[in-house]
Amino acid sequence: MADKVLIYSRFPKTMLARFAERFELLDTGGKAASEVFPTEELSGIRALLTAGGSPLGAEAMDLFPKLGAIVCYGTGYDGVDLEAAAARKIAVGHSPGANAASVADIAMTLMLATTRRLLVADQYVRSGDWAASKQSPLMRPQAGMPGRRIGVYGMGEIGRKIAARCAAFESEVGYFSRTKYDLPYQHFPSLEALADWCSVLMVAVRAGAETQHVVNADILKRLGADGYVVNISRGSVIDEKALVAALTDKTIAGAGLDVFEKEPHAPDALTALPNVVLAPHIGGHTLESHLAMQGCVLANLSAFFEGKPLPYEVKSA
Amino acid sequence: MADKVLIYSRFPKTMLARFAERFELLDTGGKAASEVFPTEELSGIRALLTAGGSPLGAEAMDLFPKLGAIVCYGTGYDGVDLEAAAARKIAVGHSPGANAASVADIAMTLMLATTRRLLVADQYVRSGDWAASKQSPLMRPQAGMPGRRIGVYGMGEIGRKIAARCAAFESEVGYFSRTKYDLPYQHFPSLEALADWCSVLMVAVRAGAETQHVVNADILKRLGADGYVVNISRGSVIDEKALVAALTDKTIAGAGLDVFEKEPHAPDALTALPNVVLAPHIGGHTLESHLAMQGCVLANLSAFFEGKPLPYEVKSA
Repeated sequence: MADKVLIYSRFPKTMLARFAERFELLDTGGKAASEVFPTEELSGIRALLTAGGSPLGAEAMDLFPKLGAIVCYGTGYDGVDLEAAAARKIAVGHSPGANAASVADIAMTLMLATTRRLLVADQYVRSGDWAASKQSPLMRPQAGMPGRRIGVYGMGEIGRKIAARCAAFESEVGYFSRTKYDLPYQHFPSLEALADWCSVLMVAVRAGAETQHVVNADILKRLGADGYVVNISRGSVIDEKALVAALTDKTIAGAGLDVFEKEPHAPDALTALPNVVLAPHIGGHTLESHLAMQGCVLANLSAFFEGKPLPYEVKSA
Repeated sequence: MADKVLIYSRFPKTMLARFAERFELLDTGGKAASEVFPTEELSGIRALLTAGGSPLGAEAMDLFPKLGAIVCYGTGYDGVDLEAAAARKIAVGHSPGANAASVADIAMTLMLATTRRLLVADQYVRSGDWAASKQSPLMRPQAGMPGRRIGVYGMGEIGRKIAARCAAFESEVGYFSRTKYDLPYQHFPSLEALADWCSVLMVAVRAGAETQHVVNADILKRLGADGYVVNISRGSVIDEKALVAALTDKTIAGAGLDVFEKEPHAPDALTALPNVVLAPHIGGHTLESHLAMQGCVLANLSAFFEGKPLPYEVKSA
């Protein structure tokens, strides 16, 4: 009999098909597990697969008394209460680095599209305004990439790939992270100092309780009227209300966002803005990234059921 | 008395203001010079400023018997009949390299936006389809940049900058140009061979009579159903009808276009497609690129009126 895995979040069926070849899946479809499956069945669950951003605290863990492994799809695990998991001897796994290039590439895509006003440009052509030589204030020339100061917040695998790409665009790269690394980029001692210096803030920090709303009204003001913010981390890192206000009153020039505070919802005040480029959390959404993340999930689950340590385990802070 | 310069093409007034500080400008606003100015005035014209893509042949040159310098704004000079100019001892100048980074960056922007379906993604968020968990076939995961084969057609300054940027995205880069350079990219002996090999064809070749419609139905077919074409050179290089057909019947996956055959018009059949990203010829459209191009124009005009050779002269083929 195949080992059972509870699918705790909502995942596409095509993706689950690959896991179903090895495990018996109990798919909640993103609903509360207790609504979908009888208590007896849940009480036997030893492993579950979740989206790292989905809330999964002590109370939820206690629904599964035999739970031994929480496997996150992707690199993030900010929804999982690591202390609660540790107290219950539940191992937590993820897919570190598997999607780093794909996420860094969406960061670059959003930055370029936002600073070069690509959506406005495409609409200018499609609407016929170009053919009619209509004036468009948003189409005025902007600063380009050479010499532009890009501030990378968070220097993990994704941040490093963003920095390397920006360097190829002849931009200056600076970063803020708690650790100063041996990297050819200027390290800033605080997020404030980085925001004062840069014109594009790339948010690539690992999200968690301590990063909640750290990109706030003050940081945005420091970016200034020619400044942009790009977020491919988690929506929780940015104070979304402050961001909407800063975009609306032109405190900053624009934003490129792949993540939002309450996914899959982007606030109406944000979707109405012309100076933003929005994406539905597709950072890790490439064929090879999905394959690599699925490989990590399969490796984590297989090891767990064989009684071995997870090969891609989250180390508790 | 300031030297007179005929403004042969349509340019923004804000840009012309900088030239007006040094020269007396006769601005046609893009109309036929003979409609705007009396023949006597035109007969004294010694220098003119034109957009390199605007047609400027022997007949037009003969309207200005004293013409000694044709100065193109930007790197292109494909509209100028170089043989006719040489026969009349008219020097032709341009702005080589001044916009190379800016144009390469638009090429990257178009490639990333097209392959990652950015416009579809933005619309998916704004429309509320994401919040409603609606299926969207165009949002299926696509191949990403690592390992992707990028074919650069033309290895001038723009092509080199595109190649360097693509390498930072962990892509494989190949190129076709008449000359094989000492560069760390695979050289292909023909455009056909490059198209067979690559999944994204970046058109960065200098346009002219010999490149007219070289990206034709056959080349597009060689790119294949997962293939993309990005054009930041001139619209004339691609057979636009063949491109629309290839995009419509899915012979190729998508296209990113900054240039069109009949600017400022993009055909309706193209603007109706969801698998294209369109821009109104904004490749060189950044603040620093405009400043650099204007610097070349001023240097060319000043040298000419001082009786010196143009510092940024087009060398006849």
